[in-house]
Amino acid sequence: MNYKMVSRTVGRLLWAEAIILCLPMFVSLYYKENLFHIYLIVIGILLGVGALFNLPKPEKHTLYAREGFVIVSLSWIFMSFFGALPFVFSGEIPSLVDAIFEVTSGFTTTGATILSDIESISKSLLFWRAFTHWIGGMGILMFVLAFLPQKDMQSMHIMRAEVPGPSVGKLVSKTTVTARILYIIYAALTVAQIIALLCCDMPLFDSVTTAFATAGTGGFSIKNASIAAYNSVSIEIICTLFMLLFGINFNLFYLILIKQFKRAIKSEELWTYLGIIALSIGVITINIAPLVNSFGTALRQAGFQVVSVITTTGFITADFNSWPMISQIILITLMFIGACGGSTGGGLKVGRIIILFKACVRELKRALNPRRVKCIRLDNAVLEKETASATCVYFIVYMLVIAVSILLISINNQDFTTTLTSVITCINNVGPGLSLVGPVENFTVMSAFSKIILTLDMLIGRLEVFPMLILFLPSTWKKNS
Amino acid sequence: MNYKMVSRTVGRLLWAEAIILCLPMFVSLYYKENLFHIYLIVIGILLGVGALFNLPKPEKHTLYAREGFVIVSLSWIFMSFFGALPFVFSGEIPSLVDAIFEVTSGFTTTGATILSDIESISKSLLFWRAFTHWIGGMGILMFVLAFLPQKDMQSMHIMRAEVPGPSVGKLVSKTTVTARILYIIYAALTVAQIIALLCCDMPLFDSVTTAFATAGTGGFSIKNASIAAYNSVSIEIICTLFMLLFGINFNLFYLILIKQFKRAIKSEELWTYLGIIALSIGVITINIAPLVNSFGTALRQAGFQVVSVITTTGFITADFNSWPMISQIILITLMFIGACGGSTGGGLKVGRIIILFKACVRELKRALNPRRVKCIRLDNAVLEKETASATCVYFIVYMLVIAVSILLISINNQDFTTTLTSVITCINNVGPGLSLVGPVENFTVMSAFSKIILTLDMLIGRLEVFPMLILFLPSTWKKNS
Repeated sequence: MNYKMVSRTVGRLLWAEAIILCLPMFVSLYYKENLFHIYLIVIGILLGVGALFNLPKPEKHTLYAREGFVIVSLSWIFMSFFGALPFVFSGEIPSLVDAIFEVTSGFTTTGATILSDIESISKSLLFWRAFTHWIGGMGILMFVLAFLPQKDMQSMHIMRAEVPGPSVGKLVSKTTVTARILYIIYAALTVAQIIALLCCDMPLFDSVTTAFATAGTGGFSIKNASIAAYNSVSIEIICTLFMLLFGINFNLFYLILIKQFKRAIKSEELWTYLGIIALSIGVITINIAPLVNSFGTALRQAGFQVVSVITTTGFITADFNSWPMISQIILITLMFIGACGGSTGGGLKVGRIIILFKACVRELKRALNPRRVKCIRLDNAVLEKETASATCVYFIVYMLVIAVSILLISINNQDFTTTLTSVITCINNVGPGLSLVGPVENFTVMSAFSKIILTLDMLIGRLEVFPMLILFLPSTWKKNS
Repeated sequence: MNYKMVSRTVGRLLWAEAIILCLPMFVSLYYKENLFHIYLIVIGILLGVGALFNLPKPEKHTLYAREGFVIVSLSWIFMSFFGALPFVFSGEIPSLVDAIFEVTSGFTTTGATILSDIESISKSLLFWRAFTHWIGGMGILMFVLAFLPQKDMQSMHIMRAEVPGPSVGKLVSKTTVTARILYIIYAALTVAQIIALLCCDMPLFDSVTTAFATAGTGGFSIKNASIAAYNSVSIEIICTLFMLLFGINFNLFYLILIKQFKRAIKSEELWTYLGIIALSIGVITINIAPLVNSFGTALRQAGFQVVSVITTTGFITADFNSWPMISQIILITLMFIGACGGSTGGGLKVGRIIILFKACVRELKRALNPRRVKCIRLDNAVLEKETASATCVYFIVYMLVIAVSILLISINNQDFTTTLTSVITCINNVGPGLSLVGPVENFTVMSAFSKIILTLDMLIGRLEVFPMLILFLPSTWKKNS
């Protein structure tokens, strides 16, 4: 472990967070809130702590996989901790555990909240809350890679550890350029959504924060009733459309940009993603139509909630906790499936589901005919054996973490549904669960201990398990290896 | 697919079931029940259908893996169907779906019942119900292998498909002798339990049926209140002890018989199994002690329920549905873990859990250090790479089947807990779940469609997924391959 390089990289990241925090500070100035000094203090702390981390001068500048993992997980933990301070210092979320839960939920684009009255929070803090989604969606280290000057960061290991999906491809040969292209596509789509929302008469502040929450597939709304508060079909359609887009692998947008339509259209993951969405909307629409007495309303609610849940955004237009059990189970299943790899969405990712499914079919065929073992093919190419087996183990670790988390949350002694779905929604970075953590509820009912576990689950989900778990492996911390 | 050999083997198995059905027939004679003709009719049907299946004369007598799987799964399906007929014809379970559920629950050693008043059922049918547990525990094809004369069955593939656990070892070079040794150990332990129960003043009929249900780790009781009905500490202790024994890999008993104590004692699976049990009992005892106002009662109830659930027996002495959530979650976790491979218990099996856990740790280490890949070791021997990856895929298929089943059961529109735990308890062959299918409830609340799905789940769980799923694979049914 190259401690000094880890320390220096984390230190620079804290500086980056200080710069980013200037944005809500300006918002607070604009709205003449009495919070300017709060942001100034936190920025000061970040600069100071960042400087401390920058003190050790590394002899070697090499970063290996292990350093990549440790940098990413430590960065996210520190970022969530310091990002929570404005809430604590302003007294708007007095409890540190609550504030860390809220900001981690922001950065990990979960969107689970401990706020009962969101509308009572200051505008600049609401902006910060939404902006954490935007930064977290594409990844803060990616942001640093893309836009801050550096020559000594070996960036591929960091990118691999932060970008979701079974396998990370570079779009172009340089990682920093790849990161920049991805961020530009991301920003352009966000701006497009802001403009679209403004056209539907949504106020500017609402449009910006809603677009941030959509882009990161986060789900924080500035309204207590989430998107339902606007009661506008056009706003719902725009949000549905953009959630759908942000759940697609960004590599496909790049392929479209460089006019490789054929390659983009060939993606198995894309068609599976769209197929699952269409099928789920169909079943839920039929299922809830008698409940809402109208096929149109049923389709509108089903469409919005299915896309919101599979992209792991978590915006709400209907209380699906009161839907029939089959609709609820479909939504819970979608939470696990999640969006496409290389998108801003969470969950297991559609790509992984495809690989897992194909691995199962191959094993069944092998049981029948042990001598005829075939390779797994994805998008007409042979999938590396390592990727397939790593994906299988990924799923197992994922389920293991869920099992342990449920066990720990059950100490809280809430009902079975709450216990299970709170973990499922947090680790998949969705936001709402069922029962006491349902769509119209929030996470205040949870004990401080449960909130800490769920905070860790959100990080584990967003960073795709390994970077966080590796922190607990003794061999990670060995000096020379 | 060698259709003729499959047909002939299944036909012989139906003859074997006809012979076995003579036992409850004699019981009905002894108790002077008016059911003699019912058994006679069913035996006649079995002999006739068996003869039909035996009509085609196979040209080749070779059996491959595929035939092994198909024979095992078809045998179990037919066996459950015909085994249900005495209940239907006698009118004691008038619905065919219900009767098939009950008998499949018996053969698969699940122990889930659709009977609200068990004590109203005729003694010979209660005996048949318990005896299905005993036959199903070690496997009916194993029984045929062990005791019926045959020269043309290539038995290893059948044994592999029917005996639970990640890898099946033959004790001695001949499969039939292995099967015989296992059945003799099994019978000896059963007789030991009957004698022990008789010593506790349990009536003979109760002792025999309880021992059958314990030996198969089934869980059918002849009392509505299960083992709690006897309200006897000594009976509870004997049942706990024997459940524990029947959950251990039978190979270990063989090793002890041939005085290889050192090899027996070295088993990682055994110690993990005992460790998990001890830990679970400890936590649950502390957790429920305030509830029952006595440490002794808490220990007694926790000990019994933990062993009953991890061995997937499903006997009841306490309504754990009213226990605090952490105790319930521990029990649900134990349902998944299950007993040791090569025992009569269900679930994933402790051996598989160990392999999965080691595969996860190896993958974490590989992420840190891609060039240093280590083998997985079990009982101080290197585990075959194939076994490790097959175990991983097994887990994935298992979870996939559970997900699909939950989706199908949710059509029934019961609460979340019932929907989930009914599937979990059936596929793991435990018996009781939570909420509406809790320890003091039964499966009558389920719709006929749900009962069919749960019946399939029980078979999938008992036969360890692959034999059943392979029935749905088109390539299984190809003529020449």
